[in-house]
Amino acid sequence: MRHDYLISAKQLSRGDIEAVLDRAAEIADDPGAVAHSHDNDLLGLLFFEPSTRTKMSFDTAMKRLGGDTVDMGSVESSSVKKGESLADTVRVIEGYTDAIVLRHPSEGAAKLASEFVDVPVINAGDGAGQHPTQTLLDLYTIRENAGFDDLTIGIMGDLKYGRTVHSLAHALTNFDASQHFISPESLRLPRSVRYDLHEAGAQVREHTDIENVLEALDVLYVTRIQRERFPDENEYRQIAGEYRIDAELLEQAKDDLTVMHPLPRVDEIAPEIDETEYATYFEQAHNGVPVRMALLDSIL
Amino acid sequence: MRHDYLISAKQLSRGDIEAVLDRAAEIADDPGAVAHSHDNDLLGLLFFEPSTRTKMSFDTAMKRLGGDTVDMGSVESSSVKKGESLADTVRVIEGYTDAIVLRHPSEGAAKLASEFVDVPVINAGDGAGQHPTQTLLDLYTIRENAGFDDLTIGIMGDLKYGRTVHSLAHALTNFDASQHFISPESLRLPRSVRYDLHEAGAQVREHTDIENVLEALDVLYVTRIQRERFPDENEYRQIAGEYRIDAELLEQAKDDLTVMHPLPRVDEIAPEIDETEYATYFEQAHNGVPVRMALLDSIL
Amino acid sequence: MRHDYLISAKQLSRGDIEAVLDRAAEIADDPGAVAHSHDNDLLGLLFFEPSTRTKMSFDTAMKRLGGDTVDMGSVESSSVKKGESLADTVRVIEGYTDAIVLRHPSEGAAKLASEFVDVPVINAGDGAGQHPTQTLLDLYTIRENAGFDDLTIGIMGDLKYGRTVHSLAHALTNFDASQHFISPESLRLPRSVRYDLHEAGAQVREHTDIENVLEALDVLYVTRIQRERFPDENEYRQIAGEYRIDAELLEQAKDDLTVMHPLPRVDEIAPEIDETEYATYFEQAHNGVPVRMALLDSIL
Repeated sequence: MRHDYLISAKQLSRGDIEAVLDRAAEIADDPGAVAHSHDNDLLGLLFFEPSTRTKMSFDTAMKRLGGDTVDMGSVESSSVKKGESLADTVRVIEGYTDAIVLRHPSEGAAKLASEFVDVPVINAGDGAGQHPTQTLLDLYTIRENAGFDDLTIGIMGDLKYGRTVHSLAHALTNFDASQHFISPESLRLPRSVRYDLHEAGAQVREHTDIENVLEALDVLYVTRIQRERFPDENEYRQIAGEYRIDAELLEQAKDDLTVMHPLPRVDEIAPEIDETEYATYFEQAHNGVPVRMALLDSIL
Repeated sequence: MRHDYLISAKQLSRGDIEAVLDRAAEIADDPGAVAHSHDNDLLGLLFFEPSTRTKMSFDTAMKRLGGDTVDMGSVESSSVKKGESLADTVRVIEGYTDAIVLRHPSEGAAKLASEFVDVPVINAGDGAGQHPTQTLLDLYTIRENAGFDDLTIGIMGDLKYGRTVHSLAHALTNFDASQHFISPESLRLPRSVRYDLHEAGAQVREHTDIENVLEALDVLYVTRIQRERFPDENEYRQIAGEYRIDAELLEQAKDDLTVMHPLPRVDEIAPEIDETEYATYFEQAHNGVPVRMALLDSIL
Repeated sequence: MRHDYLISAKQLSRGDIEAVLDRAAEIADDPGAVAHSHDNDLLGLLFFEPSTRTKMSFDTAMKRLGGDTVDMGSVESSSVKKGESLADTVRVIEGYTDAIVLRHPSEGAAKLASEFVDVPVINAGDGAGQHPTQTLLDLYTIRENAGFDDLTIGIMGDLKYGRTVHSLAHALTNFDASQHFISPESLRLPRSVRYDLHEAGAQVREHTDIENVLEALDVLYVTRIQRERFPDENEYRQIAGEYRIDAELLEQAKDDLTVMHPLPRVDEIAPEIDETEYATYFEQAHNGVPVRMALLDSIL
């Protein structure tokens, strides 16, 4: 990892990842130790697309380090509407803040921004591209709950469009995890991603039926199947019904299965799971704070 | 009062109320004493409906205690648009912040949220339901300006839909205040509220004409009559004209009458009143800060 | 200058301006010296119109002083939609914050607001009126890069509607600068502004062609020509093309010419200029921080 910015999960070596996760674990154990470690630092929040949890999580992380944030606000209330280029916007804001967190609808936006400024840029999602801090918090959650040794993970749902899934699968090749991909035929992992994973030495096993693999899993990572991907409402309903996790299904799982979801969920995980030991998706969201604190602490 | 959250003014006993008001008075006298008392605390602001003064007032209160806030932003810029449930949203955010302030268009939203999270939830308005911190700042303003002993208060305007009025009237039953309700027939206090007040031991006297009771009042609490309640524009104008306070009318009032209004006002109080000793509505809005500081200080 | 608020650049004497610029230079040299000088102060941000750089710059400045801000948010999410007057809004907010920064679409809004409240009001733009902190950061940038002695400045582009230009031109009369105004006939400096400048002792020289004066300039201040000023698209394109700065044109300029722009730019300055020594517009934007810090520090 370049230690001055984070654009893609692909730039992270196993050592880079472990350094961030180790630091995050230290911070989670004793947040008071860093509560004033960045009292004079300012983080710029540039979200060109809506976001709740990613934005609030960075905002929280920075403030838990004693620092503060400066928020561009929504695109509707900004100069962007006057036709300003992204390059100009970030070159102005680098004069205000010590680092920039950028979410943008265009793939490659964070990389482009980082080339125009001297302050570190953290990619918080660039369209269909990367969202590396999501990958880091996913890895942290897996390590805390299941560990990476002899890990068998199932990743289920929309594997075609989900950038979260592609990043995570790639990052897991650092840890020799056994990866299973479960989706309807129409939402299979794209060929290019499968190729990448093979190149990185992963064994990719694909399934259309969760029941074929459920009992072998240590972690089940569920993603949202988006209604708008299906021209036909009935087809959507049928598929959403088949790729839904409930208590009856989980009777076939290991007792210590870890169920994750990047959130927001709609109907992919039945609420009855929420109060079980399986449910790790809220903890996963909460882990965004120590992981982003660790990252900001290493950068600032 | 449960000391971990505040959902409804009805949960507040006289002792609870007096404890908050006493603490607010201490803080107002010497805000410097608490300026760094919550340096490491974060408050989540979740406003699912527009708000200026309530949101800014909580934001101010938290920062005057040395703490900071994390704001969800508008619903348009959040995951809520992706179909996330309120329960999921608050379960994520409880991992970020030490307490949550929630405004939501649905009655009962704050209660529901509080059942899903372990951090304290403060209700900042739930539709037609409750807005307990408004009640506390109203009570604080009454106590500072008129006191509760032998208090005679008139509450005027839209008594049918105004949640502020219902909460205040109920809370005043703790203090044996003599309460007069002044409104057009079509905006009378609802039967259920009248019943509640009787049950709580209050004498409810209703008037359609302010002049019948004005000279007896220590406090006159004016509320906005909303245009949208009237299908007929002429009827609205006539009624709004009759329930308007101006200098000529106040010649009949006690010299030390306290005129309050929860704001925003449109035309219910003539601007000529603003510079008189009667006008207490801006002071009332400002009192939101020490009252919310006292509440946050007791909760965090 | 009244030291309790700043409404118009016209209220600033040469001494007032130099005091702010001197303080800004001190702060820029050693920002750490003031990093906690306003730890207990709160600044209210009231932006009734979209803004990126002005709002973020004030937000940054206040936080770099150790203070914090409370933001009204967009008009759509505020009580303003309920019909509240500006006077009422600011009278509420003066009870929350130690100073108010106000941007509003109506000329005279900041002056009106300042008459209703006791806290200092800083005008961050009032429609076609004033934007005095922009003028101060422009002056700071000129002083740092070219100095005021024997200064020859060209101001180019939309001189008819640009409030930034009018304020700057007026302020420069304090420094005996030689001012050249370069624009198409249809966007000439308004007669009233020319009159004001003459009254203040300035020599106003107007040009339609930048090449007539370029080689004499120490500073070239470029502004955006807005498409919406021209009913005819072709006329707009022709004029925008003529009043555009590129590398070939600047071959005629002094080597140490300072090129400024208030930003956002669209196409008035070719990107090839960005990496040259001429380009001072990003530095100019960054200078908003120390200048606003100096101003806030003097007011709070």
